[in-house]
Amino acid sequence: MSRTDSVATPDLEFGPDGLLTVVAQDAETREVLMVAHASADAIERTRETGLGHYYSRSRDELWQKGQSSGHVQRIEEVRVDCDGDAVLYLVDQAGGACHTGFESCFYRTLDGEVVGERVFDPDAVYE
Amino acid sequence: MSRTDSVATPDLEFGPDGLLTVVAQDAETREVLMVAHASADAIERTRETGLGHYYSRSRDELWQKGQSSGHVQRIEEVRVDCDGDAVLYLVDQAGGACHTGFESCFYRTLDGEVVGERVFDPDAVYE
Repeated sequence: MSRTDSVATPDLEFGPDGLLTVVAQDAETREVLMVAHASADAIERTRETGLGHYYSRSRDELWQKGQSSGHVQRIEEVRVDCDGDAVLYLVDQAGGACHTGFESCFYRTLDGEVVGERVFDPDAVYE
Repeated sequence: MSRTDSVATPDLEFGPDGLLTVVAQDAETREVLMVAHASADAIERTRETGLGHYYSRSRDELWQKGQSSGHVQRIEEVRVDCDGDAVLYLVDQAGGACHTGFESCFYRTLDGEVVGERVFDPDAVYE
């Protein structure tokens, strides 16, 4: 399916590229895990399956977080921001969210200090 | 200044529009407050002043959060994501982050249920 041919979800304002911004937050630790994008189809798949889905701009395809790594995101709640162009996935994150092995993609400060926790070895997870 | 004529900040990957995505999170309550964008200048102003700055795509200008409302964001830490195209402002948020009067812009679920806390009366804050 293309980015736009699913039923419109109420209150959501997709951009000219058919995408909106998604922030994923761990519902328990409250860590902000990652920022990515979603198409209407990705939002629908997330609702239907209870697993975090996104749209990859670089690969130009819908993807389920954890499909290859097993590090799925079980959705506890999806929230929408005031102007409807960003959503918040509150998730139970299996493993770690970041492909580098950290719990969160935001594992460094602006000055380069590593403040995040490494929770898995990426060489053991990704071929 | 234009979006691009300041000194490049290490590790940051600005998009073709000269912007990256910013997530603001309350450092104490851990609520995700808002999603917006920043230019290199906005990041520099944030570093220099210790107050959250952004770039408004609709008004095409740099802005300081709270400049009119007084609801400034005192920066505790700025984090960068793995690929450098999103940053996380960890802030001490005065008042509320959302122009609607809620603490967070993410005050509703995808089904429209209001789950956020209203912390100020927007009619009393904005003219």
